[in-house]
Amino acid sequence: MLTLFHTPGACSQASLIALEEAGADYRIHLVSFATGDQNKAEFLAINPRGRVPALATEDGILSETPAILFYIAQRFPAAKLAPLDNIFALAQAQAFNSFISSTLHVAHAHGRRGSRWADDPAALEDMKRKVPETVAAAFAQIEENLFKGPWVLGENYSICDGYLHTVAGWMESDGIDPASFPKLFDHRQRMEERPALQRLRARESTGS
Amino acid sequence: MLTLFHTPGACSQASLIALEEAGADYRIHLVSFATGDQNKAEFLAINPRGRVPALATEDGILSETPAILFYIAQRFPAAKLAPLDNIFALAQAQAFNSFISSTLHVAHAHGRRGSRWADDPAALEDMKRKVPETVAAAFAQIEENLFKGPWVLGENYSICDGYLHTVAGWMESDGIDPASFPKLFDHRQRMEERPALQRLRARESTGS
Repeated sequence: MLTLFHTPGACSQASLIALEEAGADYRIHLVSFATGDQNKAEFLAINPRGRVPALATEDGILSETPAILFYIAQRFPAAKLAPLDNIFALAQAQAFNSFISSTLHVAHAHGRRGSRWADDPAALEDMKRKVPETVAAAFAQIEENLFKGPWVLGENYSICDGYLHTVAGWMESDGIDPASFPKLFDHRQRMEERPALQRLRARESTGS
Repeated sequence: MLTLFHTPGACSQASLIALEEAGADYRIHLVSFATGDQNKAEFLAINPRGRVPALATEDGILSETPAILFYIAQRFPAAKLAPLDNIFALAQAQAFNSFISSTLHVAHAHGRRGSRWADDPAALEDMKRKVPETVAAAFAQIEENLFKGPWVLGENYSICDGYLHTVAGWMESDGIDPASFPKLFDHRQRMEERPALQRLRARESTGS
């Protein structure tokens, strides 16, 4: 049994989507940022970095979204969530996920979590002001260069799609009009039609 | 034949070490930040993001260090640069590399490349001031939680070691005393003794 340490709205949503798409037997342990769960001893014993996602497996605990997504794809090969038999295509999938985690997510984090990198309130405000520009530049890279269509890697759905969907959900709160990225806008709508997403939405709405 | 687009001193050094450790047949295409090569049309056709590393393969071009390192490990399995037969251990390797790229390297980049995330000169100065603290915190995570010893993943050398070695080489310029991280300090010295590193150093010194 796998346990995902997850915060609704956070990037751990990408791992949740992957588990649901994989048909995995898993449970969710909710980590509430509102009550500071991520900095309590109980969670720091799970992930000393105090961040979601973390995935508890029989072999130990994994952190970092790109690593967790790849683990899920390898553990449930029948779900075909990554091109496991083609080393170049697989590296491209990892490059995409790495771009989201180290560029797009980092740009987004300067809006609410700028105190990771600066102290002066004026500096934090300046960072926040630049978020719509930097996050939009990252989405433009995806729209223009990385996204093959109809799914991220081309004809086949993969772990990259759920990760993109997760961060694309942040566009509005980062001051970006989703319609300005037509391919990604279309992708977002098609993602919501997937049975896995519909199961997750139904569970969210009943709070179960 | 593989071609690595590389800038001495940049994180592309990790891919260079991996190629050398793998015994790969490769050549290096130098990209000079000093002359702005990374923003010229010739290089943007290789990597539209204008960043090193990029690895040109027969199948196309890869970017993002964690993806390139994994590709090299998969392409040269005899070199045993990653635990390819154990999905949990392999995900741990990827989690380590993802931590370096999305946390440690990002913290470091706020010193010289803060203009990616802010515009105000005072904000850039504030970011720069915080670099020794944030980069040291990332190295402390590695020293205390992620590094198994004697190599990153334990008994076996891997792609993670060359990546760690690359970023550990930035400690002094980020205002960090390498001796304050004893395991990483020892690792750095043992890395330099590896034949692959000695070949790279010899080539650097002759400029070939």
